[in-house]
Amino acid sequence: MNRGIVRAVLGKLLILLGLTMVPSFFIALFYNEKESTSAFLITIALVVIVGLIMTFRPAMTKKIRIQDGLVIVTFGWIIASVFGALPFYFSGNIPSYTDAFFETMSGFTTTGASLLTNVEALDNSMLFWRSFTHWIGGMGILVVTVAIFPAMGSGGFQIFRAESPGPTSERIVPRIKDTAKILYITYTVISIAEFILLLLGGMTPLDSAIHTFGTVGTGGFSSKSLSVGYYNSTYIKVVITIFMVLCGVNFSIYYNIIKKKFKNIFDNSELKLYMGIIIVASIFIFIDLAYITDHSLGNNIVDSVFQVVSIITTTGFSTVDFDLWPTFTKVILFFLMFIGGTAGSTAGSIKVIRILILIKQIKVELQKIFHPRAVISLKVDDKSITPGILGSITSFFVLYILVFVLGTLLISLEGYDLITTSSSVAATLGNVGPGFGLVGAANNYSFFSVPSKWLFSILMLLGRLELFTVVALFTPSIWKSDQ
Amino acid sequence: MNRGIVRAVLGKLLILLGLTMVPSFFIALFYNEKESTSAFLITIALVVIVGLIMTFRPAMTKKIRIQDGLVIVTFGWIIASVFGALPFYFSGNIPSYTDAFFETMSGFTTTGASLLTNVEALDNSMLFWRSFTHWIGGMGILVVTVAIFPAMGSGGFQIFRAESPGPTSERIVPRIKDTAKILYITYTVISIAEFILLLLGGMTPLDSAIHTFGTVGTGGFSSKSLSVGYYNSTYIKVVITIFMVLCGVNFSIYYNIIKKKFKNIFDNSELKLYMGIIIVASIFIFIDLAYITDHSLGNNIVDSVFQVVSIITTTGFSTVDFDLWPTFTKVILFFLMFIGGTAGSTAGSIKVIRILILIKQIKVELQKIFHPRAVISLKVDDKSITPGILGSITSFFVLYILVFVLGTLLISLEGYDLITTSSSVAATLGNVGPGFGLVGAANNYSFFSVPSKWLFSILMLLGRLELFTVVALFTPSIWKSDQ
Repeated sequence: MNRGIVRAVLGKLLILLGLTMVPSFFIALFYNEKESTSAFLITIALVVIVGLIMTFRPAMTKKIRIQDGLVIVTFGWIIASVFGALPFYFSGNIPSYTDAFFETMSGFTTTGASLLTNVEALDNSMLFWRSFTHWIGGMGILVVTVAIFPAMGSGGFQIFRAESPGPTSERIVPRIKDTAKILYITYTVISIAEFILLLLGGMTPLDSAIHTFGTVGTGGFSSKSLSVGYYNSTYIKVVITIFMVLCGVNFSIYYNIIKKKFKNIFDNSELKLYMGIIIVASIFIFIDLAYITDHSLGNNIVDSVFQVVSIITTTGFSTVDFDLWPTFTKVILFFLMFIGGTAGSTAGSIKVIRILILIKQIKVELQKIFHPRAVISLKVDDKSITPGILGSITSFFVLYILVFVLGTLLISLEGYDLITTSSSVAATLGNVGPGFGLVGAANNYSFFSVPSKWLFSILMLLGRLELFTVVALFTPSIWKSDQ
Repeated sequence: MNRGIVRAVLGKLLILLGLTMVPSFFIALFYNEKESTSAFLITIALVVIVGLIMTFRPAMTKKIRIQDGLVIVTFGWIIASVFGALPFYFSGNIPSYTDAFFETMSGFTTTGASLLTNVEALDNSMLFWRSFTHWIGGMGILVVTVAIFPAMGSGGFQIFRAESPGPTSERIVPRIKDTAKILYITYTVISIAEFILLLLGGMTPLDSAIHTFGTVGTGGFSSKSLSVGYYNSTYIKVVITIFMVLCGVNFSIYYNIIKKKFKNIFDNSELKLYMGIIIVASIFIFIDLAYITDHSLGNNIVDSVFQVVSIITTTGFSTVDFDLWPTFTKVILFFLMFIGGTAGSTAGSIKVIRILILIKQIKVELQKIFHPRAVISLKVDDKSITPGILGSITSFFVLYILVFVLGTLLISLEGYDLITTSSSVAATLGNVGPGFGLVGAANNYSFFSVPSKWLFSILMLLGRLELFTVVALFTPSIWKSDQ
């Protein structure tokens, strides 16, 4: 690790974090929220000062190697959450620092798991900041997806490399800059579009912004305890559904649309499977819900599609308390938590492309039974999946299951029922947010002990950074200084 | 497929099945169980006649190719269950044929999932036959493990090839014969040893035989509704625990002991991990149980070790109703259902060796992050795991999860709670037997609908035959006749 460059980049990130708090500060001023105004002011000052100190001594090199990249990304998310939690804590909006950190990590990792029993009790500026972390986190993950993950190789993101917009240079810095520009624009255009459409649906500007951040970052924080269910409006549900679908999709798709490469879109197997899963799951849930007698539970196609999309994109909004839905529907939703959106989107979890490749390998294996000596190559969209890539995807999948198992074991020490236990781990690791049982859509994570809350924070970070980014930091050699 | 040889071998299997019913017939005579005596007599006659018809015309070839092997093995288990269920049905001991088939499939697949609410109500001869199917099934799977699975390649059983006793010829027939002899002897010696030790513990000869069959085949059918918990004897619990551990182990270990190759045993990573998991899980559960106040729930080390061993070896005996144990313990037991014993034992589920290799691949992947161009080879006990083998193991693991997911979705249509639903699928697919909730140790599978019972039968077969044996039959080319 090159300590100089890591320090300098993290310092810049801190200054940037200070800047992102400025809108929240003005909102606090606007609504005359005194404690929040000073909380933001103090935090901004603190963050900028620390950032300036860190960047004061220039780094000896501009070259960011993979070791440095991993440390920057992981600590970038941690530092953002450590300092991003301060306004909640300083203002007294969230009196416990553990809780404030959990909520902020949940924001920056675009998870949307909340500890708040009464969301509406928060200051407006705090509601805005809480959701704005989703938007920042979502953009951050898009950049990291093209900049760090492919270079890292692990987890099968090599397959993504060829598809990512921008130059395919091996060096990270120029690629970040070129790609980031395209991503900023796409991300911002989508956000503005949704914001306007929600405004037109009768939402206040503040709520429109909050729900836009929650959708585009596939986060799921709402300004209402009832989430999107608060708005008894099919229009709003449909708009949010469409934008969730759009943001669960590889952002290079939009690059292809701009470049008029429509063939790339229609031939994209991952996209087809993603849409296929959404359609099939929605139909099954719609049929299953038609059998329940209590119509207030959401007996229509809008709620079915909304919930399927909300879970598969790992957003976590809800229109009804889906924990009250029948078993078959709940099982579908539970497994959707492990699928997630497509690679290169803001969605979390395992991702459709990995599942597609792993299932295709089963077919290869079946052919190998009858042709043991034949060389059968695994292909997706005419791209060969080498044994190396398959090995990467395998290890990602296995590590994901392993982390889920270990997380569930640790949370089970709390002694809650198996569904609460397992779904809380699946929902945080997969960056979904709400789970089932005591962490269902109508509930929250406030009842867990302090150690569990920290564990959930770690799980959210692990899931968001594709596991290996964080796990690699436990390799001792990474910490050897070379400056 | 060569229809002649498939027909001839299945015919021979039927005649053999008839012979295996002879001891049960005599037991029925001995206990003067009239309906059962005639039920066995009619079934034996039927089975032998059908078998003779099938073997009447000799096969044109003696060569069994892989296609034929897959059909023989899958249909061998199905036919054995179809006809093996008849005595239960004819005698009225199990009045529904679906139930009788489920119970017999559960026997031959060494699962031990039962539909019987009152086990003690069965005739003695029927209790004997029910458990004897475990013993036959266990021996069958040992032969198939050395004869078919390695030749098939799929699922990573290639790694097992080199370790299997007997000649390593590629042709199946001579290998079956030589290896089978060693296995018969080992299996029988272990069975006799346990039978005698249980007799010495005060069990009746019939119960000793039944519990020996359940242990050695890692099946788990008991002659008591309370399972091993009926015997309030630490001696019996310890004996059964030791033999469950022994039968969850690769049988080539015993071949190595005879050949005095002790180094092969102590250097066996799979064996070390298997023992390690048992020890660690037992300690955790022992500590967890020490906190519960109701001492009748089994607050001691014997019950902890017994239950861990019973689940990991996929036997399914119980000494207490472990469904009443605390969450942490239940989570451990639930995940143990997915591990299973070592490859080459009578245990079902995923198997320790596959999990070992998949976890080792994560380490390889971590090294690849920092040395992207290095060729890092995956090794287990100095044997190289080629990308081909890793691909096989990956596809087995993914298919296992996939079948679990699909099974859970289908069973969830019944509308029972998520724990009953998911654990019933895990316990049948993994050939464990009891699960949690409504299918817990104190309960049974009788309340499920008829379609679900057939689905469970399919899951037991899939799990027992390492998935690919059965799934490969859906390849159309296999059914093309070449005779």
